[in-house]
Parts: sequence; structure tokens; C-alpha cells
Amino acid sequence: MFTGMIRPLATSKTLAYVGGLALLVGCYSLLPIWLEYSRYHDAINTPSQFHGVLSFVLGLLLVFRTNTAYSRWWEARILWGGLVNACRNLGIKLTSSDGLTDETRSRALQLIVAFPVALRCHLREEIDDETRESLELLVGRAKHIPQAIAAQLYQIVWDAKRSGRIDGDELRVLDAELLRLMDICGGCERILKTRIVKSYRVFARQCVGIFLVSLPWAIVHDFRIWTLFITIITAYFMLGLETVAEHVETPFGYDEDDLDLESLCATIDTTVHETFSHHVPA
Amino acid sequence: MFTGMIRPLATSKTLAYVGGLALLVGCYSLLPIWLEYSRYHDAINTPSQFHGVLSFVLGLLLVFRTNTAYSRWWEARILWGGLVNACRNLGIKLTSSDGLTDETRSRALQLIVAFPVALRCHLREEIDDETRESLELLVGRAKHIPQAIAAQLYQIVWDAKRSGRIDGDELRVLDAELLRLMDICGGCERILKTRIVKSYRVFARQCVGIFLVSLPWAIVHDFRIWTLFITIITAYFMLGLETVAEHVETPFGYDEDDLDLESLCATIDTTVHETFSHHVPA
Amino acid sequence: MFTGMIRPLATSKTLAYVGGLALLVGCYSLLPIWLEYSRYHDAINTPSQFHGVLSFVLGLLLVFRTNTAYSRWWEARILWGGLVNACRNLGIKLTSSDGLTDETRSRALQLIVAFPVALRCHLREEIDDETRESLELLVGRAKHIPQAIAAQLYQIVWDAKRSGRIDGDELRVLDAELLRLMDICGGCERILKTRIVKSYRVFARQCVGIFLVSLPWAIVHDFRIWTLFITIITAYFMLGLETVAEHVETPFGYDEDDLDLESLCATIDTTVHETFSHHVPA
Amino acid sequence: MFTGMIRPLATSKTLAYVGGLALLVGCYSLLPIWLEYSRYHDAINTPSQFHGVLSFVLGLLLVFRTNTAYSRWWEARILWGGLVNACRNLGIKLTSSDGLTDETRSRALQLIVAFPVALRCHLREEIDDETRESLELLVGRAKHIPQAIAAQLYQIVWDAKRSGRIDGDELRVLDAELLRLMDICGGCERILKTRIVKSYRVFARQCVGIFLVSLPWAIVHDFRIWTLFITIITAYFMLGLETVAEHVETPFGYDEDDLDLESLCATIDTTVHETFSHHVPA
Amino acid sequence: MFTGMIRPLATSKTLAYVGGLALLVGCYSLLPIWLEYSRYHDAINTPSQFHGVLSFVLGLLLVFRTNTAYSRWWEARILWGGLVNACRNLGIKLTSSDGLTDETRSRALQLIVAFPVALRCHLREEIDDETRESLELLVGRAKHIPQAIAAQLYQIVWDAKRSGRIDGDELRVLDAELLRLMDICGGCERILKTRIVKSYRVFARQCVGIFLVSLPWAIVHDFRIWTLFITIITAYFMLGLETVAEHVETPFGYDEDDLDLESLCATIDTTVHETFSHHVPA
Repeated sequence: MFTGMIRPLATSKTLAYVGGLALLVGCYSLLPIWLEYSRYHDAINTPSQFHGVLSFVLGLLLVFRTNTAYSRWWEARILWGGLVNACRNLGIKLTSSDGLTDETRSRALQLIVAFPVALRCHLREEIDDETRESLELLVGRAKHIPQAIAAQLYQIVWDAKRSGRIDGDELRVLDAELLRLMDICGGCERILKTRIVKSYRVFARQCVGIFLVSLPWAIVHDFRIWTLFITIITAYFMLGLETVAEHVETPFGYDEDDLDLESLCATIDTTVHETFSHHVPA
Repeated sequence: MFTGMIRPLATSKTLAYVGGLALLVGCYSLLPIWLEYSRYHDAINTPSQFHGVLSFVLGLLLVFRTNTAYSRWWEARILWGGLVNACRNLGIKLTSSDGLTDETRSRALQLIVAFPVALRCHLREEIDDETRESLELLVGRAKHIPQAIAAQLYQIVWDAKRSGRIDGDELRVLDAELLRLMDICGGCERILKTRIVKSYRVFARQCVGIFLVSLPWAIVHDFRIWTLFITIITAYFMLGLETVAEHVETPFGYDEDDLDLESLCATIDTTVHETFSHHVPA
Repeated sequence: MFTGMIRPLATSKTLAYVGGLALLVGCYSLLPIWLEYSRYHDAINTPSQFHGVLSFVLGLLLVFRTNTAYSRWWEARILWGGLVNACRNLGIKLTSSDGLTDETRSRALQLIVAFPVALRCHLREEIDDETRESLELLVGRAKHIPQAIAAQLYQIVWDAKRSGRIDGDELRVLDAELLRLMDICGGCERILKTRIVKSYRVFARQCVGIFLVSLPWAIVHDFRIWTLFITIITAYFMLGLETVAEHVETPFGYDEDDLDLESLCATIDTTVHETFSHHVPA
Repeated sequence: MFTGMIRPLATSKTLAYVGGLALLVGCYSLLPIWLEYSRYHDAINTPSQFHGVLSFVLGLLLVFRTNTAYSRWWEARILWGGLVNACRNLGIKLTSSDGLTDETRSRALQLIVAFPVALRCHLREEIDDETRESLELLVGRAKHIPQAIAAQLYQIVWDAKRSGRIDGDELRVLDAELLRLMDICGGCERILKTRIVKSYRVFARQCVGIFLVSLPWAIVHDFRIWTLFITIITAYFMLGLETVAEHVETPFGYDEDDLDLESLCATIDTTVHETFSHHVPA
Repeated sequence: MFTGMIRPLATSKTLAYVGGLALLVGCYSLLPIWLEYSRYHDAINTPSQFHGVLSFVLGLLLVFRTNTAYSRWWEARILWGGLVNACRNLGIKLTSSDGLTDETRSRALQLIVAFPVALRCHLREEIDDETRESLELLVGRAKHIPQAIAAQLYQIVWDAKRSGRIDGDELRVLDAELLRLMDICGGCERILKTRIVKSYRVFARQCVGIFLVSLPWAIVHDFRIWTLFITIITAYFMLGLETVAEHVETPFGYDEDDLDLESLCATIDTTVHETFSHHVPA
């Protein structure tokens, strides 16, 4: 319990950053504290109920911000979980069916496994050279690589249909999964490109800012030296909720709280390969 | 962080407007402040807990208003995200299949790409002459252009079915996507035509109004000159939440926080064209 | 903004009614005010924190009530939006297919357009003579007219199937939409027949009642003449939220905040007729 | 309005029971009140802010409890609404199709109508002799009667398929509805067998208990004789919310707020019979 | 009611553990109490409103934590409820169809019944020797046993299709259920592997910690000896909500509040066997 409370401040970059910011706000609060203990202490006449209305609005905004950010993050996780399912099901179905030649089946395997990798790079808008090359080898140059992969998979399936190796019902059974690949891609793009309403984000930030700037002045008369601790703790949680919401809202990046896309890609790779290994006749 | 708090007041029309309104409320609060500092200051005897019950109702209404407005906005975004998916899938499927002649396929491409443009104009109830002409060239005069486009797409697919170029299973695979086009159109029309229950909107507005009109009178005894700042800040956030909710609730307009329909149409255009470019034999 | 706050009190029957009730409560509050200013003013010794716990429970109940009522209303709207889609899609599909003779197609058109009208009358449990006659002409006497219409549509489609004019795939494409008609009807009946848990509604009403009856006695010592205004404003919002929730919870009636079923029926009529006009060969 | 507030205390068993409990708590509060008015009144030194933190936790728990209980209840209602739809659609489809002999069709009718009755008895784990006999006559002895009925319906449909009276597409159209029967049964079983997390229910009960036991001691100094009324009213609402949540959470029983399964079964019976009566040739 | 409040402290391991922790916090609170009653009692000058802002953040975090944890738990329950449905439907469909030989049908039965057991072991990452042996006998060695079982079921169905014993429509009807098996497996893996955003969990823990550490110092001046009881009760509920959320968030373990996977597996076993017993000809 104890280590669970203190250690993250050292091990988590996000929390260390927030902690640092909170200390800065704490330094700032030394100014009213110093004034309070100096002979000018009557100069501070901010009324102490100053924060009543503000904390009310702030609560509304922080709850809204946390909930919407988290539900975006969880939706993104559900989409990637659906990708695991779709790839696995495609694997199982393609190996159960014998509508594909060994050659096309192994090509399909490559395409399925490449899809999540391509989607990950697409969402992060960065790609290392090795991955790019292997993807280009697979589907040629394309601007929207996940789409190109899905199109190639469709091509394989409809070709098999046309040559009569699979019938209409098998086509539809496979189509149901192929469809999900692109729907998941579209869903991720939606989360990536549209953040929550900008004005709400600005309001939340402004409200936190005004709250923290005015807090020490309002409470220093009553709390004196304790103002320092209260300001730091308050700043830590307020800035923390704001910062984490900012990270969680864009779940495809490299922040600690972002989705671990690498490990999801690896999971898909393993699970799809295992599917094929079971069934392809030696 | 700092620029994120101050700059939007200059760059965002919505926030500048809200800021202006808040300053007006601030001017109004000068009246009780002037009275308080004058010799008539005993004339103000509003009890300071005046706002207890009101802020309680106000909180309820603002939370309700923000959440419903945002969930409408996000649903509209999901619908347009679904439109991207449906158009892209249609593109991939029509190019994978060879049930269409090159001519009809290229006509289908035009129709798919025209659908989001027509829907955008339909939702905004305005259309520039150039767009109108090109749409009329495509589907003739029609009152409900998106519907006319979808009907034409259906015509193409069922014609291909009747002439035996695609079979029943392919029909159903294509039907699944065509269906989504009109379901998305219907969903957007629902959001456009039905705003949240009118009485709730009136309550929210009245509650904000009464709150702000009475606020300075209730706190001026305790807060004196600080009343000015508190009134301005409170008005800024209250009017801001109300105004932004009003904008966000009708997400198809031209406000800053509205959906960027132009860029969504452009995305669909690009992505569908890329689909076709990959596959149509030269 | 200003007219948006005051005018609804004159133009909206609901709000005028609520305003009237609030004035009555205001009259009632004159009793403690008169006592307070009389020489018996020591007789009032209600403690002023009387409402602490009550307002806490009241908040919980009003939030719960508003949210559930609104989500029922919005679900009803979604169902009717789905009805627009289902009818329009049926129209497009029936005209794209040529599995129907001109005669049956025009009968199908009549049935589709009659369905929302019949559903509206069914949900309101009232029907004018003209509508009744035209519906009886169409489907004969039936207790559950929407069901009779859907059954006739099914009959048409399965007859076409049996006579070989449409094949199994077309049957299923049409079945998907026909199914929705009755599912929507069932969904509306669910909302109509099952209101929210009765005990919660009684609690909400009792809590508002006790709150308003005790409010002026508890605050009259502190607020004196202002008690009148506070009581009226509080009563206005409390009774308003309760009354509007009551209206919104049963969205198929004639209240101002109810769904505009007439205009939805008209929309469906127009849109379905347009579908047919485009395609039926002259 | 007035009768809506007072009468339920007499007519509703649940509310009368809660009212009785609240009076008991009121009796208990006479102890601190008697002490307060006795010469030992200095013995009570409970601080009056005692309930600050507790009411905070209590609010959280009651909101959580009310929302989860209600959403279970509403989900159960949706499931039974879906059952109405599924039975009705099955009826319409079976009569539109002529894949069944008159004999099997009338047997199917009996099975469809028996399903909700069997499910109701299954969920309540009680069955009167008459119902049991008629169900046993229909499907023989079975431990899970709804499942046996669904299996028999499947048998009928697949037999018709095997004998070539309906084709694959009609099989699938019927399968879509049959599937829903068992899915609804499974959904109801889920709600029946899994209540909300037990620890949360214990917390809620403990919190209400501690709150009510300590309330009169904490407020008797300030409120004196009014303590009695406040305690009774508070106990009424707290125990009421807790008791109603308990009832609503298990929506298949005989409590007033439970679903009216009898009338739902009757609705299904009527609606399905009407479907058949329209269509079966005399 | 009474036993429902006290007994769980003795019978529930979770609540006994939380109760023990709360007593520890109570012991800790003896320190400020002792100081308060000693002659050093002026040394404690913590301001009593210390917890205003903190309790505000704490409320936000506890509500968020409880809701997300519970909705994960309930989603997991829905997934396992869906598993009951999918297995039962598979059973009914496989016995209604006669596309399978008696031998393969009995093998399919074994596979269906083995699936939930394998999934349970997979989710808990532990497996007793007996279960492992029987599973290995069924599907051979495999890393991902549920996937291997699903793949074998697919193999059976597609083999039957290829040999012409079932046609395309029956394939699709069976595919719909088989698909659900792996989708449910994927959904459970998602819940298992991805806990809620780590930073939020750390914040919640830190906030509870700081709250409880500072609470007795802040209130001891006002509450004196009552500080002990208030601290214990507060600690009990705060730590309780935190601990239970931690348990509920990972619903596949052995905690009291976790899902009862054993009984769910047994239910599936019984229900599927009953399905087969009804129908397999003697």
C-alpha cells in the first residue's frame, strides 16, 4: 500500500512531472505566506470564500474531462481488442476452409499479421525503415497502408470466390471479419483526429489556472504556514487530473498511460501464427 | 500551459464573445459595488446565502446540459466516422468484385464521393451553385439529394444482380454498406432536427440569468471590491458553458467547436479515390 | 438571450403552469413572513440547517429523475428516427428491385406510409374517424393495426418469393428492414407501458413537497422579506424539473416537450413518396 | 399532486413498510431528545459536524446503488420487450411462410405462446400445477423448460428445412428470431443469478445504518424537538432508497416495483394469437 | 437488516481485512488524541477546514474508480452470460441439424463443454493436472487452449460443409455462434490484461492515504475523543471502496466479489448436456 503511494512519484514520468509542477506552485505560494508573516500582512484582504463558485465549476469540468478522456481511451482499447479477435477469427476461418491454395493462405497470414503493425504506424504517423520496407514488399507503395492491406485481403477472398474455390456463404463468413478490420481502422482514426470539444478543454485549463493562482492568497490568513502544504497537494491533484486526461485522451502515443500497441501487435502475431501452425498440413 | 490559457481568448471567436459578455456582467456589478462604498451601503441587505439553493439547481442543469450536448456532438462524429468507413468499404468491395463494368464502376465512384458532400449541404441547408450543378449533373433534380444518390447506388447494384454479373451473396455484402449510408443520413437528420427538450434549455438559461443578476448584490457586503473579479470570472464560466453547449448541441454548423465537415468530406474523397486507383486495371 | 429567458413563461403552457404553481407556493410563504414581522416572531424556531439532509436526497432524486426521463425521451426519438430510416430503405429497396408488380408495389407504398400513422394512433390510443377508415380500407379491421400492416407487408414479400419473382437473398435484404418496423413498434410500446419505477417517482414528489413546505419556515428568520423571492424561485425550478420530467417520461403525448409525431409522419410520407416517384417507370 | 404524495403511503406495501421502519427510527430518536430536555443534557457532546464525511460516502453509495439497480431493472424490461418482439415476429413469419403444415404451425403457435410462461416460472422458480401439466403435455418432462421449448421450435424449423418445405434463406430468417428467444432467456438468468457486487451492498447498508443511529445524537443539541421530524424524514428516504434498490435489483419477483410478468405474458399471448388468426386460411 | 450489517464483518474475508486496516488507522489516530488531552495540546494547530479541497478531489476519484471497476465487472459477467448462451445455442443447433454423425456430434459436445473450463484456466493462468490432461486428450498440446478448441469446432463444421452434410446456410447459422466463442474469449482477455489507467489508480490511492493520515490531526481540536470513532469509520469506508474496487476491477480471480466461474462452467455443462440428452436418438 505504502510503496503503491510513494514509488510512482519516482518511477512514473508523468507523475514526477506533475509533482514537479506542484512544487513550482508551492514556491509561488511562498509569496503570500511571506507577506502574511511580514508586517504587510494586512495588505492581503482576499475573502476566504473566494473559491466557492470556482470549485463548483472546476468540479463539473474535471469530472467531465476525466470521464470523456477515459471513455475515449477505453473505446480505443475495445477497438484494438476487436482487432485481436478479428485477426484470430480470420486465421481460424482461413485455415478451416480449404478454399485457398497453400501459397495464398501463407500470403494471407502475412497480410493479417502486417495489418496491426501498419495500423500502429499509421496512427502514430511514424514508421521505422525496416517496417516500411517489409510493408512495401507486401503491398507496394501506398499512402494509407492499412487500407491497402485490407484491399489485398479482399482481393484474395473475392479471387477465390470467382475461381469457385469458396462459395458465396464462405465469402460472407470471411467478409464479416474483413469488414471489421477497416471499421476498427476507421474507429481509431476518429479517436485520433477528433479530440473533445476544444472550448471545454480551454475552460478546464483556465479554471485550474485561476484556481491555483488565487488559492494561496485566499487561504493564507486562515491557514498560515499550512498554506504551503495545501497548495502543493491541491496543485498536485488538479494538475495531475488535467495532465493525465490530456494523455489519456490521445491513447495512441508513447505516454505511460497510453495503450501498449507494441504488445498488442505481438499478441496478434503470436495468436495468428499459432492458428496457422495447428492446421496447415505439414 | 500559459498560452493555452490566455491565447484562446484572442484566437477563439466563441471565447472572445463569452469574455465580452462576462465583462458586461462585470460592469453591471459596479452598481452594487458603488452602492456598497457610498453612504447608502446599508440599503443592500440581501442575505449572502441567497445562492445556496440556486447553485444546487444550476449545477444539476449545467451538468445535464453539458453531458447531453457533448454526447450529441460525439454521436454526430461517430456517424460521420461511420460514413468514412462505409464509403471506404464500398470502394474496396466494388473494386474487388468484378461484377461491374468499368463505366458503372467509375459512376459508382462518383456517387460514393458525392454522397458526403450532398449530406453536408443537406444538413446545413445551403449549397453553393457549383456543387449544386455537379450534383444535379449526377442525379438530376431531387429534393433530398443524399437519398437520390443512395437510390442510384442501389439501382446500380440491383441492376448488376439482375443481369447476373453479381450473385445474391455479393448483393448482400454490398447491401450491408449501402444500408449504412442512409442510416447515417437518418441519424444526422435526427440530431439536426431534434434538439434537447426545450424546457430544460429554458430552465438552464433562466437559472444562469437569475444567478448572475443576483450574485453581486449577495456577495458585495463580504467581498467589497473583489465582487468585481468574482462576478466576471463566474459569469465567464457560466455563460461559457451555456454558450458552448448551445454550439455543441448543433454540431453541423460553422461554429469553431462544430464538426469539420469539409475536412471529413476531403478525407473520404482521398481515401475512396485511393481505393479505386489501386485496383482498376490500367 | 433576454427574450429567451422571459418569453417562454408566456408562450410555453408548461412553464406558465409551473410559474403559476410557484406563485401559489409564494403565497403560502407569506404566512411565515407575516408571522416573522408580527409580534409572534419568536414562535418560529425551526432550525435553519433543516434542509441539509433533505437537499442532499432531493439532489440525488432530481438528477436520477431528469436523466432517466430524458434518456427515455431520447430513446423514443431514436426509435422514430429508425422508423424514418426503415421506411426510406424499404422504399429504395422495393423500387430498385423489380420483384414486385406495379400493383403490389403501389400497395406496398401505401402500407409503408400508413405504418407510422397507425403506430402514432396506436401509441396515443386515439384515432380520428378519417384515419381509421383509410386504415381499415387498407388492412381490414384489426386490434393491433401496426402489426396487421407489417403482416401484410411480409405477406407481399413472401408471396413474391414463393412466386419466384424475388430470390432468397432479396427476401433477406427486405426482411432486415421489415423486422425493424415491428421492433420499433415493440420498443415504443415498452416505453409507453412501463414508466420508471413507481416508488422512485413517489419519493421524488414527496421530497419536493416536503422541501417546499418547510423551506420558508426554515429561512424566514435569516432572510425575512427575501424569503418570498427565494421560495418562488426555488419552487419554480423544483416543480419545473419534476413536471417536465413527468412530461418527458411519456414522450408520445401532446405536451410541448413531447415528440412531434405528426411532423415525423409527414417526413416519412414525403421521403417515401419521393423514393417511389424517382423510380417507377412512367 | 397532493394525493400523489400521501396516498402511496397507504396503497403501496413497500412505502408503508418503509414508513413503518422510519417511525421506529423516530421512536429511537426520542431517547436523545428526552436526554436533551432532561437535566443530563450536558452528557450529549457529540460534535454536530459528525456527519460531514459520512454523508459524503453515503451519497456516493446511494447514487451508485440506485443507478445500478435501476439499470438492471430496465435491462430486464428491455429483454422482456425483446421477447414480445421476437414472439410476434416469429408469429408473423411463420404465418407468412407456407413452409409449415397446418398441424405443425398450430403446434409452433402453442410453443411460442408457452415460452414466456415457462420463462416466467423458470425465473421465479415456482410453478402452479396447472401450468406445469400443460407445459409437460407440450414438451415432456424437462429440467430447463424454456430451453426444451426452444429446442422443439428449432426441431420444427430444421425438420421443415430437411423436408424441403422451407429453403436455406427462410431457415436463416427464422433462425434470427429463434436465437433471440434463448438469448433473452440467458440474459434474464444473468440478471437473476448475479446481483451487484456483494461488498458494495453491505457498505451501503452499513453506511445507512451508522448514519441513522448517530444522526439524532449529533443534531439534538441544535434542533431539539425538531430532531424527531428530521430523523423520521431522513430515515424514510434513506431506508426507502435502500429498500427500493433491493427490490428493483431483482426485478422478477412479486414486489410492487417488479416487472409485471403476468401482463407481459398475456400481451404476448394476445398478439401472437392475433397474428395467426389473421392469416391461417379458414 | 441488522445481521446484514454486522455479520459480513465476520464472514467476509474482504470486509474483515478492511475492518482490520481501519482499526490500525484508528490506533494511529490515538496519537493526536493523546496529544490533544496532554499539556502539549496547543501544539496541534492544523486548520480544521484542511480537508475541504481534498475531499472534493477524493469524491471525484472514488466515484470514477467505483464506476469504472463495476462496469468492467459487469461487462465480464455479460461476456460469461453470453458464453452460456453461445454454448447452449450451439448445443441446440447441433442436435437439431443432422449434418453431423453421432461420433462427431458427441465430440462436438465434449469440445463445447470443455471451452468454458479451458477459458477459466486460461484467464486465471493456472490449471490443475487433471483438467490439463483431459484438455490435452481433447485437443493436444497447445499454448492457447480455448483457441485450439474453437479451431477444432470450426474444423468439424467446415468438414461437414465440405462433405456436403450441411449446406452453406447451416454453416452460417453455426458460424454465428462459433464466432461468439472467440469474441467472448477476446473480450475477457481485454479485461484481464488492461486495467484502468494506472495514473488514476495511483491518484486514488495517494488521495485516500493523505486524507486518512491528515484527518485525525485536523479534527481532533473539535471532536476530541470522538476523533477515534470518526477516523475508524471514515477509514473503513474509504479503504473499503478502494480495496473492493481493486478486487472488482480484476473479476476473474478468487476474491469473494469475483465472478463465480466454477458455477458458471457447471451451469454450461448441465445445460449443454441436457440439450443433447433430449435429442440424440437412443
